[in-house]
Amino acid sequence: MKRILFLAALVLQTFAMKAATAKIDRIEPANWYAGLKNPSLQLMVYGKDIATADVKVDYPNVKIDSLVRLDSPNYLLVYLNVGGAQPGTMTLNISGKKVKYELKQREMSGDKRKGFTNADVLYMLMPDRFASAVAPTKKKSATIPMKTKYTVDRTKPSLRHGGNIEGIRQHLDYFTELGVTALWFTPVLENDSPDNNGNSTYHGYATTDYYRVDPRFGTNEEYRRLIDEAHTKGLKVVMDMIFNHCGYDHPWVSDIPSKDWFNKPEWLQSVKEGETPEAAAAKSAQYLQTSYKLTPVLDPYASKVDMSETVDGWFVPTMPDLNQRNSHVMKYLIQNSVWWIETVGIDGIRMDTYPYADAKAMASWMKELNSEYPNFNVVGETWVTEPAYTAAWQKDSKVAKVNSNLKSVMDFSFFEKINMAKKEDTDAWWNGFNRIYNSFVYDYLYPNPSSVMAFIENHDTDRFLGEGCDTVALKQALALLLTVNRTPQLYYGTEILMNGTKSVTDGNVRKDFPGGFEGDTRNAFTAEGRTKQENAMFNWLSHLLHWRQGNDVIIKGKQTQFIPFNGIYVIARTHNGRTVMTILNGTRKSATMPVKRYAEVIGNAQKVKDVLTGRYYNLSTDLELRPRQALVLEW
Amino acid sequence: MKRILFLAALVLQTFAMKAATAKIDRIEPANWYAGLKNPSLQLMVYGKDIATADVKVDYPNVKIDSLVRLDSPNYLLVYLNVGGAQPGTMTLNISGKKVKYELKQREMSGDKRKGFTNADVLYMLMPDRFASAVAPTKKKSATIPMKTKYTVDRTKPSLRHGGNIEGIRQHLDYFTELGVTALWFTPVLENDSPDNNGNSTYHGYATTDYYRVDPRFGTNEEYRRLIDEAHTKGLKVVMDMIFNHCGYDHPWVSDIPSKDWFNKPEWLQSVKEGETPEAAAAKSAQYLQTSYKLTPVLDPYASKVDMSETVDGWFVPTMPDLNQRNSHVMKYLIQNSVWWIETVGIDGIRMDTYPYADAKAMASWMKELNSEYPNFNVVGETWVTEPAYTAAWQKDSKVAKVNSNLKSVMDFSFFEKINMAKKEDTDAWWNGFNRIYNSFVYDYLYPNPSSVMAFIENHDTDRFLGEGCDTVALKQALALLLTVNRTPQLYYGTEILMNGTKSVTDGNVRKDFPGGFEGDTRNAFTAEGRTKQENAMFNWLSHLLHWRQGNDVIIKGKQTQFIPFNGIYVIARTHNGRTVMTILNGTRKSATMPVKRYAEVIGNAQKVKDVLTGRYYNLSTDLELRPRQALVLEW
Repeated sequence: MKRILFLAALVLQTFAMKAATAKIDRIEPANWYAGLKNPSLQLMVYGKDIATADVKVDYPNVKIDSLVRLDSPNYLLVYLNVGGAQPGTMTLNISGKKVKYELKQREMSGDKRKGFTNADVLYMLMPDRFASAVAPTKKKSATIPMKTKYTVDRTKPSLRHGGNIEGIRQHLDYFTELGVTALWFTPVLENDSPDNNGNSTYHGYATTDYYRVDPRFGTNEEYRRLIDEAHTKGLKVVMDMIFNHCGYDHPWVSDIPSKDWFNKPEWLQSVKEGETPEAAAAKSAQYLQTSYKLTPVLDPYASKVDMSETVDGWFVPTMPDLNQRNSHVMKYLIQNSVWWIETVGIDGIRMDTYPYADAKAMASWMKELNSEYPNFNVVGETWVTEPAYTAAWQKDSKVAKVNSNLKSVMDFSFFEKINMAKKEDTDAWWNGFNRIYNSFVYDYLYPNPSSVMAFIENHDTDRFLGEGCDTVALKQALALLLTVNRTPQLYYGTEILMNGTKSVTDGNVRKDFPGGFEGDTRNAFTAEGRTKQENAMFNWLSHLLHWRQGNDVIIKGKQTQFIPFNGIYVIARTHNGRTVMTILNGTRKSATMPVKRYAEVIGNAQKVKDVLTGRYYNLSTDLELRPRQALVLEW
Repeated sequence: MKRILFLAALVLQTFAMKAATAKIDRIEPANWYAGLKNPSLQLMVYGKDIATADVKVDYPNVKIDSLVRLDSPNYLLVYLNVGGAQPGTMTLNISGKKVKYELKQREMSGDKRKGFTNADVLYMLMPDRFASAVAPTKKKSATIPMKTKYTVDRTKPSLRHGGNIEGIRQHLDYFTELGVTALWFTPVLENDSPDNNGNSTYHGYATTDYYRVDPRFGTNEEYRRLIDEAHTKGLKVVMDMIFNHCGYDHPWVSDIPSKDWFNKPEWLQSVKEGETPEAAAAKSAQYLQTSYKLTPVLDPYASKVDMSETVDGWFVPTMPDLNQRNSHVMKYLIQNSVWWIETVGIDGIRMDTYPYADAKAMASWMKELNSEYPNFNVVGETWVTEPAYTAAWQKDSKVAKVNSNLKSVMDFSFFEKINMAKKEDTDAWWNGFNRIYNSFVYDYLYPNPSSVMAFIENHDTDRFLGEGCDTVALKQALALLLTVNRTPQLYYGTEILMNGTKSVTDGNVRKDFPGGFEGDTRNAFTAEGRTKQENAMFNWLSHLLHWRQGNDVIIKGKQTQFIPFNGIYVIARTHNGRTVMTILNGTRKSATMPVKRYAEVIGNAQKVKDVLTGRYYNLSTDLELRPRQALVLEW
């Protein structure tokens, strides 16, 4: 062992001569926090020929655990042990260059951070499409300079429209008026990639800097300010993150840190100057596209070739697939999430394409986060419509190959079934609301059904209204979503009847919020700017959302569902002697609900109030329901 | 406590006066066995006014635990403790009447009884439809006298055709020639019910005597003889039992033992003399039909009303629903199963309508059977096509409300998917063999996938061939069924291309086996009696079945499946350096299988043999497959 150390020292000395000339471009993370449970800190140092640098540090309770040189000479990983170190600024001596590095004081301990729960209703929005505003301290600027070329053009559905964080901040009261309690924005980190055949990275899922808010959206400070103000108004903020892949223009791509930094990166060598990644990938035999099939992750009989296609394959050629099995990559990503929690105070994370990343590595991330922030919450995008598959990704699943440690998963089954049911009469065992009933039966597989995030639409799906405006079906779906044993998530614009389908273009389900942009002819953020029909929907939803806030019958209540009968689906919540009963006529005909059949929930209740309309109903006789009527009775 | 006992004694004395006049019609079981682990023995004594009888017994190590009087005066339950008692005949003194009761010597201890496993292939048949023969010791009799009226008429698909146990026994060599290793007959117990609107109980699912083989099928002794002979030929026999319901003409119906002997029996009072149960049920508001929906048994949110409809509702008006929650009913049923194991030596039980009976009570049955017969096997009819639901009924499911303790369940998902796939090209993620692939993914939910019984047809479904004769699709289905990680079950006649659909009538999928009955114009039990096409199928299947016998690659092999690629589904088994690879072209076109893709299984194998044809294939180049070709390669 001694001999090896001695040799290593010799090699280091030789390297050090070269390193003396090395340049330090940046260190990630730019600072760290004192007092975290995990004492290990990875510093990723960027700079030409930095790999061979020697590093020293002299700060109480800080020591260097290891220096890791990767395949590229232009990166150096410095592993520090900062356990027990007090806040303050240390000096790193990197081959003679002195670099200040700050261990900041944390604002609160990890257990004080409260994530979103099923007591919340999340409102999801796309910063580029919501609202554009100029911070009071700034000058108006039509175009923010980036390294790569892009265009702001609101007439083009796939180009940038110019919405930003300040635009969101200036509408915080809109959310509280509506009654949602948490916001989830699509990613705000830098996506410095050029427009490509009319497509841009306005969606934010092609990260080029894990530590910087995209300047077109704002600054890290503006993001922080938005979150602070949201908190003062009782709103939580959920940050969208992507560990599965980065953007094609991330510095790691043109100078790959190590051979196994990405999965299947060999094809990148075939990309010619000026060629788009898509065109090069189409010609490359080495390019591996993900199969988008998540079954191998669960299949006890999965072949290696299928598993590799799923998790090693790239989502698209412009999104290089990170190899989470490389412990340095994973450490980088884990730290990144911790840094954002500590730095801007987010209340939760939504993790993109969760099952496409390595399951064990992702589980290690969740384990560390759950340990440091036991009350925080992460929801994974688990896009499978079979509830049995989704359930295996929730923390403490008894049947998963790997315990994901992931508290929240997304209920694409509910999404799929409610969107099928809206077009069907509930008149056979497998159609209409029978689909919803059957989907909830699978909750026996979920370790924690109330932490499953349900929704009726999001940025990747058709709008619930399609190209139409069936508010009756929409109200049924929302009444259900907001009263069942789930964590509900809304998508911006539902409240003003935004519609659209993806068959036109993705941008068609990501329209600009009217009034959010300069030159808009009306302002749907205000009652005056909304149409009569929009106001009706806004008010209906707002009333229901405010009623839901802090309502323990919904948050903690026992759930009882009834097999649809006479085409009517009934699902009830009970808690401490209080009851909420959601009743949906799943047919386009009038239907009679035989009250006696529901005696186990109704008991002696007679005069009961419909939350949706304020009307009172008498439960001593059968209920007559109008076609597609929704009732949320409470007593 | 003393006071209560004293009062009880007084009451007994008063009763005893009446009981002195009581008649003893029968005692069930008619005998018992010494040395079972459970020392408790329930004797059900039938007789007018027997309930108040006094009972004494004087036999070493036998004592009376309790006498249980039910609501009807004509039953008495005597609970004996026979723990430690030696074989022999005791005398029961029932209110002065002396009755001999034998504790028989067991032929072997419970752990010596071996149930069927995935090393077996089950052959299911209906005794009434398979073959008719007269035992050498008997005179020929066209009609066996029963209490109720029935007709034997082979021209009527729903009347009796006259097949019997002796008919099966005389064809035991047929099964060994075919290569199956276990037989499952539909129930053989007495179904003494009259023909009803052209329908009879030839199927056997309406038991009227739990301890007697239906005389039309034979005697208990003939059943035993059949099993003994089967054993000498290496064949196992699985007995079909029904605990969920009995037949309408069971003595318990006209004289109900206790108010809670059946679920929801009140409507029976409304049946008028001469009226059919169906007609009476249709008019009765009290009659409760099962919903046939098994979801409430799993649903964590199940309402009581739905649960009650599922498990308390009757299957049909002629099948009274037994209440397994009544411990006396359950004890009766448990003993019945033990008695048949000990008396005739069956190798397994197939339990009808498993999830319609009370889950906890059924689990207690399985627990007792598993304890007494640790190597025995029971398969439950779990008719749901969602594998996640089926899996929850298997022993040691981690997600079930109740551990069923049931080792084997039936794979209706495989049945459903293979019957859909046969009509489809495998060209989209959800069709063709992708359905099978996806169904097997769910095996992560099964505690023991190899004990799941798979099949492509049975007596309750359409024949795989429908009304046609697509032997190519049939061979694909059978090649798969007999090589995957399952316990396969065949249905009689598949080997001679029997077809038929239920839309014609149930009898159309339960046709008579040609040659099994007097007057048949040909004998398909012999090669000479089969058509050329039938012989081709028989020989093909027989070859595969004999190859499977004792084949550890199939029985113990690790399974690897590949997502269908180019329309081809590949599933492989490997064990101790040996490999079997089932390859199915799921399209009606020629297809190329890129051999490299399967390198993880193929390794260096080159010249490999197709089990189905004996032809050799070279795996050093890609395989060209004919439309719908099936290969079972081994090396």
